[in-house]
This record gives sequence, structure tokens and C-alpha cells, in this order.
Amino acid sequence: MYNYATRMQEGSVSYEVAVVGASGYSGGELLRLLAGHPSIEVAVATAETQAGRPVADLHPNLDTAAVLEEADAGALAGLDLVLLATPHAVSLELGGQLVAKGTPVVDLSGAFRLPPDDFAAWYGEPHTHPELSELAVYGLTEFHRDELAGARLVANPGCYPTAALLALLPLRELVEPGSVVVDAKSGTSGAGRGLRDDLHHANVAGDLVAYGAPRHRHTPEIERELGLGAVSFTPHLLPIARGLLATCYATLAEGMGEEDVRGALLDAYGDEPFVRVLPPGRFPHAKAVAGSNGGQVSAVVDERTRRVVVTSAIDNLGKGAAGQALQNANLVLGLEETLGLTATGIYP
Amino acid sequence: MYNYATRMQEGSVSYEVAVVGASGYSGGELLRLLAGHPSIEVAVATAETQAGRPVADLHPNLDTAAVLEEADAGALAGLDLVLLATPHAVSLELGGQLVAKGTPVVDLSGAFRLPPDDFAAWYGEPHTHPELSELAVYGLTEFHRDELAGARLVANPGCYPTAALLALLPLRELVEPGSVVVDAKSGTSGAGRGLRDDLHHANVAGDLVAYGAPRHRHTPEIERELGLGAVSFTPHLLPIARGLLATCYATLAEGMGEEDVRGALLDAYGDEPFVRVLPPGRFPHAKAVAGSNGGQVSAVVDERTRRVVVTSAIDNLGKGAAGQALQNANLVLGLEETLGLTATGIYP
Amino acid sequence: MYNYATRMQEGSVSYEVAVVGASGYSGGELLRLLAGHPSIEVAVATAETQAGRPVADLHPNLDTAAVLEEADAGALAGLDLVLLATPHAVSLELGGQLVAKGTPVVDLSGAFRLPPDDFAAWYGEPHTHPELSELAVYGLTEFHRDELAGARLVANPGCYPTAALLALLPLRELVEPGSVVVDAKSGTSGAGRGLRDDLHHANVAGDLVAYGAPRHRHTPEIERELGLGAVSFTPHLLPIARGLLATCYATLAEGMGEEDVRGALLDAYGDEPFVRVLPPGRFPHAKAVAGSNGGQVSAVVDERTRRVVVTSAIDNLGKGAAGQALQNANLVLGLEETLGLTATGIYP
Amino acid sequence: MYNYATRMQEGSVSYEVAVVGASGYSGGELLRLLAGHPSIEVAVATAETQAGRPVADLHPNLDTAAVLEEADAGALAGLDLVLLATPHAVSLELGGQLVAKGTPVVDLSGAFRLPPDDFAAWYGEPHTHPELSELAVYGLTEFHRDELAGARLVANPGCYPTAALLALLPLRELVEPGSVVVDAKSGTSGAGRGLRDDLHHANVAGDLVAYGAPRHRHTPEIERELGLGAVSFTPHLLPIARGLLATCYATLAEGMGEEDVRGALLDAYGDEPFVRVLPPGRFPHAKAVAGSNGGQVSAVVDERTRRVVVTSAIDNLGKGAAGQALQNANLVLGLEETLGLTATGIYP
Repeated sequence: MYNYATRMQEGSVSYEVAVVGASGYSGGELLRLLAGHPSIEVAVATAETQAGRPVADLHPNLDTAAVLEEADAGALAGLDLVLLATPHAVSLELGGQLVAKGTPVVDLSGAFRLPPDDFAAWYGEPHTHPELSELAVYGLTEFHRDELAGARLVANPGCYPTAALLALLPLRELVEPGSVVVDAKSGTSGAGRGLRDDLHHANVAGDLVAYGAPRHRHTPEIERELGLGAVSFTPHLLPIARGLLATCYATLAEGMGEEDVRGALLDAYGDEPFVRVLPPGRFPHAKAVAGSNGGQVSAVVDERTRRVVVTSAIDNLGKGAAGQALQNANLVLGLEETLGLTATGIYP
Repeated sequence: MYNYATRMQEGSVSYEVAVVGASGYSGGELLRLLAGHPSIEVAVATAETQAGRPVADLHPNLDTAAVLEEADAGALAGLDLVLLATPHAVSLELGGQLVAKGTPVVDLSGAFRLPPDDFAAWYGEPHTHPELSELAVYGLTEFHRDELAGARLVANPGCYPTAALLALLPLRELVEPGSVVVDAKSGTSGAGRGLRDDLHHANVAGDLVAYGAPRHRHTPEIERELGLGAVSFTPHLLPIARGLLATCYATLAEGMGEEDVRGALLDAYGDEPFVRVLPPGRFPHAKAVAGSNGGQVSAVVDERTRRVVVTSAIDNLGKGAAGQALQNANLVLGLEETLGLTATGIYP
Repeated sequence: MYNYATRMQEGSVSYEVAVVGASGYSGGELLRLLAGHPSIEVAVATAETQAGRPVADLHPNLDTAAVLEEADAGALAGLDLVLLATPHAVSLELGGQLVAKGTPVVDLSGAFRLPPDDFAAWYGEPHTHPELSELAVYGLTEFHRDELAGARLVANPGCYPTAALLALLPLRELVEPGSVVVDAKSGTSGAGRGLRDDLHHANVAGDLVAYGAPRHRHTPEIERELGLGAVSFTPHLLPIARGLLATCYATLAEGMGEEDVRGALLDAYGDEPFVRVLPPGRFPHAKAVAGSNGGQVSAVVDERTRRVVVTSAIDNLGKGAAGQALQNANLVLGLEETLGLTATGIYP
Repeated sequence: MYNYATRMQEGSVSYEVAVVGASGYSGGELLRLLAGHPSIEVAVATAETQAGRPVADLHPNLDTAAVLEEADAGALAGLDLVLLATPHAVSLELGGQLVAKGTPVVDLSGAFRLPPDDFAAWYGEPHTHPELSELAVYGLTEFHRDELAGARLVANPGCYPTAALLALLPLRELVEPGSVVVDAKSGTSGAGRGLRDDLHHANVAGDLVAYGAPRHRHTPEIERELGLGAVSFTPHLLPIARGLLATCYATLAEGMGEEDVRGALLDAYGDEPFVRVLPPGRFPHAKAVAGSNGGQVSAVVDERTRRVVVTSAIDNLGKGAAGQALQNANLVLGLEETLGLTATGIYP
């Protein structure tokens, strides 16, 4: 429907899905990825305020005559899976309805990533569906693969937590609790398509600025999954469209060193299709994974400070959003995890 | 060999090719595209001064342990096809040797695009293999498809001529000879990877500059194929890595108007897999085709000046270089033209 | 008031002005320039919807505790001069009131640049103050210097017309009417600070797109001042914050050549403080004049097509807006034209 | 000599200086700043390999017919002050000769910033003039103002140390030794003008990458001046030409809180002409000080982690190099510290 060039023959399409919230960046990226997926077809792409507009008006890269439609919960429930690229308030309600009807949901918002209490504390509002949070599987694929196969509701991770956790989770046993600092930098598409003066091109071009610290909503998501106590997390807005780099600091536990760190990273990712541990001396490039579901990780140890510095790069719309969502959707549907995805970014 | 994620099963790989000049941007893009090609495998990637270096050092997006090798003409001749992403001086000699041995060659340089006389006049040196220029098929796929199937030597077009010709060729009969102005803007990867002060990041970032006018080597390539007399061609260096936009002006012939123009564009591209005519009111976005082999074209007519303004966007490394080279390689090898390629850019 | 660092001693300040529309980019640039002006002080900076906000919230480069105020026509009339960085509808009314009270006005909008008929045709609305258009002096300083000294109302030129006219006006007698093509590229600050999806950073970064052709409102402004008949004008949106490049094409009249062109440019600008003719072989860099009131011009002649290609670079907020407005304000107030301005951009 | 527009009358010029290494970015920025300085004139601008080239070829923003000359130590010694924008090896020798002859020197390299032992350890070579290191005053103006007045040799700080120390020095008594992490991001002009593949525009555009950790040469410079033990320092290469942001983390000492932090910053900078403490809720923008000698600092306290996060922004070529060098030169020559400088960046 969206792209013939890499579309396989009709007969092989087995599943029909919806992309809800298809006017935004994550929604558009889902449409792009699914246009090349051999076994999943987009039955409907919906949007709220933009319903009725041609998809190609909003996503000029997509060669399609399709038009954005209004979301109809009943019709959505009849599909094989629904991808929600919606604000968390919409996801809370619509996700609940779909799960109730037995339709698998992969939700890209923050609606189901935190326990209700944490959600209330960091989002400043009560969680309206605590039962769904219980049900939801946290979709950091490399660390929750088994639960994801057949999950009814996937809470797709935030872009910053994805990068930070890919960097730090393998080192959980090697570093001291309470010592973690995550300094992260994201391209502006991570902030969404909603119009804001601080995302106006002329303001961002040539600039760099921190924001949100120390109360960004991705903080508890990192902390909960990492289990190393409170984390200092500072996001920054990069003057690029896509790409996310997390530079993570932690104090090494007694006796741990460069070899332990490297071993732990290779243990975690040596067989992974999308995450690559760089050889010593190379640092991850945000652009090396741009446009893909890939991740790059590398670490250096500073014996003077006894800290390890782990750096990870992802595409905030790829592994940080739509790519990982599709990776998870593949698992939920029982498909091969890598279908429709690549680990190879567009470079230069 | 280069990327398992989208690699099909071994059994389907039918052809082995070489990428010569794999350290540069076009060479790297060929490796990236071929890593996802279902029927072509890269048997060897070569480079001159960078031989011995890991491919991933130069192209950090490529997840491969492969190492760049020295080119060996004898070994290359045994392959099914050779892609030359080399300077024209190298292509002239190596291309000649390979063609002599019957190995099909797709050459991305300017070595075989012009008749020997024009080559001498614009490149400032005699053409050392005039017999090959005769033999070469100009690889603007949409307009030379029949000759390309089974061609022994393909002269892959320059990036600027590709964009200009996609915009203007369908209008050849509608506009006045001698009236054509091509104002083109390219991302810096189009200028290659050779180090130069005017390509140093700090100099280019935030800047825009014209260059090369009125004697850029792509001028005669446009003129020869277009057949509308001398063309005013001015290229500009854009502060982006990839993407090329050509804004073309020509005076309409008596009696011609907006409908004729639109009709001619739709006639030319209505059935094309990679070139899209935008609906009235939309202009091509360079980024809409970034990372792909796609092209976008649109035209407006100014009754006041009787000029048509045709704008076209391509990725200078995609349809402007490696993408089109692969499209042509598919044809030369008798494969489906669209294999391993997409028309969908990475956006935003 | 806004910046002590380059502020001269109090005693030398002779004039008090207002910046109306100080929340936008041109308004902010006026505040920046005036903060370093030795003889003009900003008495009040006003804004409509942003009134009450600290100036430094909107312009983080300005080190001031000043707060944006609501415009009060009566109070403004008591000042020595008023700079209007407002939409044309606001300028039409407020400019009229101020001029009626004898307060000199420099207006940066399109309100007074065209004869009422042309205004109506290109802006799609009747001109409400035709008598002011008569009165207004077109503020292309280098060509209207005598009228500007003591002018009551200055219509500050648009950014594109400034660049195009600086390139073409000196060649008016050397080229053929009806042959002019202006292909111009501007940084996004030229499109203003109003929020729009096509100016959202993630959309613009890495992109290039034409827009507005063939009916952009700056077209008649160029045509009227140039007097060479209808002009083909195509603006493009560059992925940089500041900087504007105009590439202009025109057919040389019989007998005219490179020397005539160069002579005409040097005649026009040899003694100008802000416009520089580059030596043969160099093209203007947009960034060379970024942050300044400077302009760069150079020309090449193509004997094959008999066209001259003139390229000019300005900062769209400098010589293209606030810089030239201050240059004109200096003249209106009887001050030295160069006060508070520089021709030297920030590079790299 | 370089720029008439803001040049004062000849009579007021009191001092003649040289810019050695004027082909690079810091050298060019010194020329730009000095062109607008009321009391200092550039007597000669020198370069090694680029001697003989017009200044404007290398710095297209500078409107001058001056030509780069070869450095002659004898002639330089006759000037009032010499600014060395040279590699440290050149500075070591030439700086020594000039100081020996009594000519004041402001050196922008790392030659004299560290004690000879530290220099040897971090630069990997013995220090050839230990006696000069002793003599040199570290030119972080706000903290060494008294020593700088009349200094014979100024070691102008590195760009990263300037940003990190402006953020952290005021908090020296408030935070725990050994707890400091400095995550810094710089525009590419900070890496100099020497051609390198990792600084090639196409590679950098759209990318972000860490480098140099944990052994970057600026590390000991920060540690020595800060006196809080070993520091984790990670620099990153930003895809912008100018601008530097340092995000600094430190654990608060017992009993210290947000008010103490803010008080300390205001105590340090409340009366400073170039460094500004932002009000709560605002973070420094790199672009807010671009093109200027300004610095912006702000801090937030995270009670959960007990860390303070201090962010500072400078222009790496401004306060991080040429701007601060001129600030120091003013002091050395007994001039007002702010002459020829501004705290106001070019924004947007």
C-alpha cells in the first residue's frame, strides 16, 4: 500500500495492523518501516486533528495516496495488532479498550512504562488504568524478549531510557549504586512534531541547550529498569533531526576493570542483531545508526577516577521509538524479530 | 557478508560483484545498498590508499568485519560485474581492462559520459579510451532502460545531470532552445571525501556558496543529453551531508502551458518506480528522498515571464550516484530493476 | 540599557527610539544592534501578544532586565524615531499615525514598498494608506541615500529584493530586459518566528525546498526597482538560521562582456562601506556576512550562453532587515551612516 | 587596517600587536575582533605554510587587502604585545624568545598552561621551557584578573577548561572532591582548521560523537585549577561551527543546597561584564553567546541524587579562545578589560 519498491508479493502478507497517531514523527516512521515489511500491512493510519489529510502531505517521503483517517476503536479491535503513537492520555484510554477486546497493542507513549505510583509522581496526574501497567511488558527487546513473545500490551521504552539502558544494563553488577550519571543528547524529532518556539528551526540551528533536568520523565524509567538507585539524568536538544547519544558515567565496583566491562558488553550483545559493541578506540556515532533500528555501544575505563564511561548511540525514531516498536510487534505476532528492520544507518 | 538483518537466504544470491573505490562516499553507499540486496553479493571491496583498513572504520554504519583490499584487475575480471566508484583516471584504465575481458562495468565517474572531444575540452586532458566512450551507455535509467539491459559498460550519470535531466528531459519539446538555466544545490557528500578546506565542517556549517560556474564539468553532460543548446549551470554547496535540489528555468514554446507541462511529466514518470511527480502546490523536498533512490519532480508555470520552473530532488549519493548505479547493475544482470532499492527517503 | 560592553558614555547618546514588534527576529536584531550604538538608545521595546515578557526570555543573547511593553501610539510619537518590525497590517495603521504626528518611521514590513495597485495585486488586499506609499522612500541605502536623509517614512526593503538588487542594479544598462532569473536561498529566520510545521526544526534540518514561486510577494519589489520587466524569482528555504544568497542570471546586451560587468560593480560599490565586490574567482559566502550589515557581490560571464551570473550574499536579518533599517535610521537622524554597524560577519 | 566600519579615529590607537598563526580559526577571530578595537591595531598577521596568501582568502568575512606574512621574531619583539595562535610546539619556542626580549605574550596554545611534569604526562613530550611555565599567568580572566594586569606571559585557557571552570570554580567549597563529572560538547571550529576526515563536513553534519575520553589534554588543566581531585571529562564533537556547552555534575557537600549554589554563582559573577548567571528555570544556550566573549551559567540541584548540575555556555572561539585572549591583552596593556569585546551573541 505504501511502497512497492521493497514490497514482497501479496501472498506473503499475513497480518494487518493500524498506526494510530500517524501524523507525528513516530507514526510516520512506523508507516515508512511497515511499507517495506514483508508480512505486515498497514490497514489504516489514523490521526486526530489531521484526519482527512493525505499522508504524503505530512510525510513527503512516503509515496502513497493514502489519507489519514479518524480512529475507530471498534474497527481497530478487529486488526491483528495496533501501534499507538499517541500522547499518553490517548494511549491510556484507547489502549485499555483494545486490550480489553483482546487486540495486542504496542504503545509508544509513557502511559504504561511506570508503576502507577511512579507515573503519578513524575507525570503529575493519577494513572487511570493501573491494571494495564501490571499487564504491560517493558519493550526493551534485548532484555525482555521472552515476555514480549505473545504479550498483550507492550510499553515501548522512551528514547533516552533505551539508549541509557543499552549502555548500562550489562554493567549492572559491575558498578556502584548511586553513582550513575546519564548525560544524553537527542535530535529534535525526539521532542515531537507539536509546534513550539524552542523547536522552531531558526532557534535550534547552531544551538545546543540542556533541558528538563533534574525532573525529566524518563528518569524513573531508567532508574526502575536499572536498579542502581537514583540517577542524574540531563537531556540536551541537539541541532539535528535524528540521532541520540547517551554518555553514561558510573563508578566501578572494587576490582572491576576494562576487561570486565568489555566482557559484560560482549556477553550482552555479541549475538544481538541490532546492538553492536564497538572495538576499543572507537566511539559510537549518532549518524551511524540514523534511519535504522541499530544501536552502538562502547566503553572506556578511567583508572584515575575509577569511573567507566559508556556511550551509546541510537536513532531516537528508530531503536528509540518506531524501530523498536516494530521489533516488538514482530515478536508479539510470532514473526522473526528482524523483519522489516535494518541495523545499518544512513551515513554520511 | 555486510549485513545479516535484511539479507535473504544464501540460496537466492546469484551474482558476485566488486566495489572498487570503496573508501569513498559512493563506494560506502554501494556497500550499504548491496548489504540488503537479495541477489547480489559483494565479493570484494577495494581501495587504493586505504587498503588494509576495516570497512567499518571508514563507514561506521556498516556492521562488517570486512577489510578493504587492493584492486587486482585479474581477480575482478572473474566477477559477474564491477562497480567503479573511482576517480575518472582510474576508471579509464581499469574500466578498459575489464570491458576488454568481457566483465560488465558500471562506472560512477565522468570517464565515459562524454564524447572524447567534449571530455578533452571540459576535463582539460585527452580521453585515453575513445572506443569505450562509444561503447558506453549513459545510465540515466528512465531514459535508457532498453540499452542498459545487457550493456557492457555503463556511464553512470553525474548527480547534477541526473537531477537536471529528470526535471527537463520530459519538457524537451515544450521549451525554447537556449533558454535553459539550471540552478542546483548539493549536499557536501557530492564533493567527495577528499580533504579540502572548503569542505571542512566549520567552514561549511551555516554557509552557502556557489562554485564552479560557468565551467563545471557537469554542464556538457546536461547539454548533450538534453539537446537544447547551451545551458547556464550553477552548482552550490549546501550545508547538509546528502541531498540535491535542481531548480530549472526554461522559456515555454509558443502555445505551451501548465497543462502541457504537467502532462509531459506524468507521461514520463507515471509508471516509474523511483520518480514521482508531485501534485500541484507541492515542491520537492531534498530530504524526502534522502537515503533512497527516489526522485521528486514538480513544475510551475509563470505566465508573466512565460517560463516554466521545474524543481527536482534526489539524494546525490542515491539516484545521483550509488542508487542509480545499482538500478543499472540490476538491469545489466537481468534482474528486476528495483531489487535492493527503495524510493522512500528518511524523513524527518 | 541592553548591553554595557560596547555602550559608550551616557553623554554621547543623542536620540531615543522605539522598537515595535520586538519579540520577533528582526526586532531582536534591532535590539542587539542598538545595544552597541553610540548615539541611539532604545527607549521602549514593544510587542503585542508577548507584552509583559522579559526580553531575555525571547532573545537569550540579550543581557537585559527589560520587559516587552504594549505599544502606545501616543508615547511612541514623542520619540525621535520609531522602528516598526511588525506585520504589514500593523505597520499600515501605526505607521500612518506616527507619520501624521511627524515622527520619523523606518518600517521593515512590506506595507509601503509597492505602489498601492501593485500592493493590492500581490498582497490580495487593498492598500489602506495610499498617501503613505507616495511619501515612503525605498530604503535600499546604496541607491537612495540622498532621499533617505531626512525621510519621514522609510520602506525598508525585503531581504530577497535587497540581495537581488545589490546584484543586478549596477548591471541595469548592460543586460536585456525580460531575461532576468533570480534564484534565491534564505535561512529560516527570514520566514519569521511564527510557528509553522514547515519551519519546525526536525522538518527543516538536512532539507532544502523551493517555495512561493512564481508568486512570491518580493517579486514586484524587485521588478519595480530594477526596471527590466518581469523577473522569474524562486526563493528556497535553507537549513541555516541566517544568511541569504541570490544567484541572478541575465542575458548580456550586445557588446557587453566580463570587463563591463566588473567595471559596473566596482563603480557602484568601490566606495561603499558595506558592499564588497569580490575579486575574480571568488564567490560570496553567506556566512561571511552573517551577523553583520555587509554584502558581498561577484559576477562571472558565460560567453557560451551570453549570460552573466551575479551572486550576492547578505544576512537576511542584517542588510536584509535590521542592519539596513539601522543604516537608514542613521541617515534619517542625520548621523553617520555606519554607526553601530559592521560589515564583518562571524566566520566560521 | 581590517575594518573601517567600527574603527575609531587614528589618533586613539595606542598599541600595535601581532597575530601569529593568523590562518587558523582563533587567529582569524583575533583579526576580526581587533578590527573593531579602538586602541589596538594589528601591525602584522603571520602564518607559516599560508604566508603570502591574502587574509580574505582564508577569512572571507574580513574586508582587508592584507596578506599573511612570515613570522620574524625580531620584528615581533618590537611590538607592544604578541598574540600566539600557534600549535604548542611553536608557542614554546617563539614565546620564549619574545618573553626573553621583554615583549608581552598572550599564548592561546597549551604550551604554558600546565606545570612541566603534567605537560610531559599529558602531551607525551618533555616541556622545553619549564621556566616559562612558572612565569605564565593562567588567563581565566575572572579568577586571575590581578595577576594578568602587567603579566609578561599569559597562558590563555583551553576552551573546555574555560567552560568547565566558569561553571565549577564558584562551587569549589560546596561540593565533594572526587565527585566531578564534566560532559562537554563543542562546535568543530574548536578542533582547528587542520584537515581531518573526522572533521570533513559530510561526516560531521547530522552526527554527534564523543572523543578523547578519558585522556583529553584539557583534563589536567581543569583539575589543576579546580583543586577537587581527579575529574571525569568527556568532550563531544557537535555538528555546529561555534559554541560550547559544558554540563558539570558534582555531589553537594553535607548541608549545601540550591540557595547556596545560586548564591555562590551570583557572588562570583554578579559584577562581571561577560559572565551571566541565568535566572532559575533557564538553561544556557550555546548560540546566545556565539560570536561574543560572553558566558552563561546556570545550576539546578537534584535532591534525590544530592548532585548539582551546572551548565555553562561559551563560544569556543570567543571566551574559549580569541575573545578571552583579547580580554587578557587589554589587561596586560593596561586598557579597559571590555574594549573591543561584547557579551552579546548573534541569535538566532
